[in-house]
Amino acid sequence: MATKAELTRQRLLAGAMTSFAENGFHGTSTRHIAAAAGMSPAAVYVHYTSKEELLYEITRLGHDEINRIVEEAVAADTTPSERMRRLIRGFVIYHAQHHASSRVVNYEMTRLSTEHLAEIVALRTRIDGLIAGLIRDGVTDGTFVAPDISMTTTAITSLGIDVARWFRTDRPWTPQTVGDHYADLTLRMLGVLPQN
Amino acid sequence: MATKAELTRQRLLAGAMTSFAENGFHGTSTRHIAAAAGMSPAAVYVHYTSKEELLYEITRLGHDEINRIVEEAVAADTTPSERMRRLIRGFVIYHAQHHASSRVVNYEMTRLSTEHLAEIVALRTRIDGLIAGLIRDGVTDGTFVAPDISMTTTAITSLGIDVARWFRTDRPWTPQTVGDHYADLTLRMLGVLPQN
Repeated sequence: MATKAELTRQRLLAGAMTSFAENGFHGTSTRHIAAAAGMSPAAVYVHYTSKEELLYEITRLGHDEINRIVEEAVAADTTPSERMRRLIRGFVIYHAQHHASSRVVNYEMTRLSTEHLAEIVALRTRIDGLIAGLIRDGVTDGTFVAPDISMTTTAITSLGIDVARWFRTDRPWTPQTVGDHYADLTLRMLGVLPQN
Repeated sequence: MATKAELTRQRLLAGAMTSFAENGFHGTSTRHIAAAAGMSPAAVYVHYTSKEELLYEITRLGHDEINRIVEEAVAADTTPSERMRRLIRGFVIYHAQHHASSRVVNYEMTRLSTEHLAEIVALRTRIDGLIAGLIRDGVTDGTFVAPDISMTTTAITSLGIDVARWFRTDRPWTPQTVGDHYADLTLRMLGVLPQN
């Protein structure tokens, strides 16, 4: 069970996320975050030393989750095409469902301290490496065509990340619809025609 | 030849773009914009009534340029594949070359006034319509495969727009390299294998 301090930290993270999404990192003050969390500005400093620490926590949690989704898909005991389909679906559905926090994570990342940014960049490099490895598996066994694995990896992650920018809950597309369709488009990009 | 007033407006636009890119729209004051343009805060108001008007000007100019690129490619007297290749190259190269202003245009757009936002949304709808029309041409003549033209249009514009987020001038890829490669990837997404 979460302790009272943990619940307070969660409320502050949610408040910081909303404030960063609405006003940007530079347009957000501790006062905004406290108000969004329904707390006093002084209470923020009991739990976090700065708004940068809150941004770091939000950014790290988001990347940990994507890393988990990608690791699971890549390690699945099935064909490269099926692993890629799972990866894209998971990646896209996450960015559609968490579009507000994913925008903060991807657009405000450069506001992090040098050490925190280095840690996040290392995590992103690791995630890109897992995706590139999966493409390489498919190229090796003859399933995929990818003249430039690095560029294709960039295009694949880019398509998924940018879902957070354009996804709206008032459109008929669900996160799952987009995930399925993007998996087909990605497999086509890799030279695999969807089987149906 | 540009008048003195026009040159001053251009300097202010450049200053506003830099400030929005660095601090976000909400984190930018008239004072920042004036400083970035090397002018006094009072001088800003001689030319623009508000920072929203500056954002609107930046956003409209960016969209006009993209609209022009897309219109030209779509109207070219050649095959759907060749028109799509020109469209993607132009779209991608623009977003790579103007990555800082394109980020401002795409991430701060929602800060515009209701009327200005409506005008920009109408322009985006027009651009999307031109791209969807080109996909339809290719599907009709049997060159392209696109089970959902609207979703494919979204994926194509998304890939191009997101170049502005990840493009760095310190990488070996030039805007042209990315444009060429992305044209191949997009044609694959449309079921066309590159000829080489």
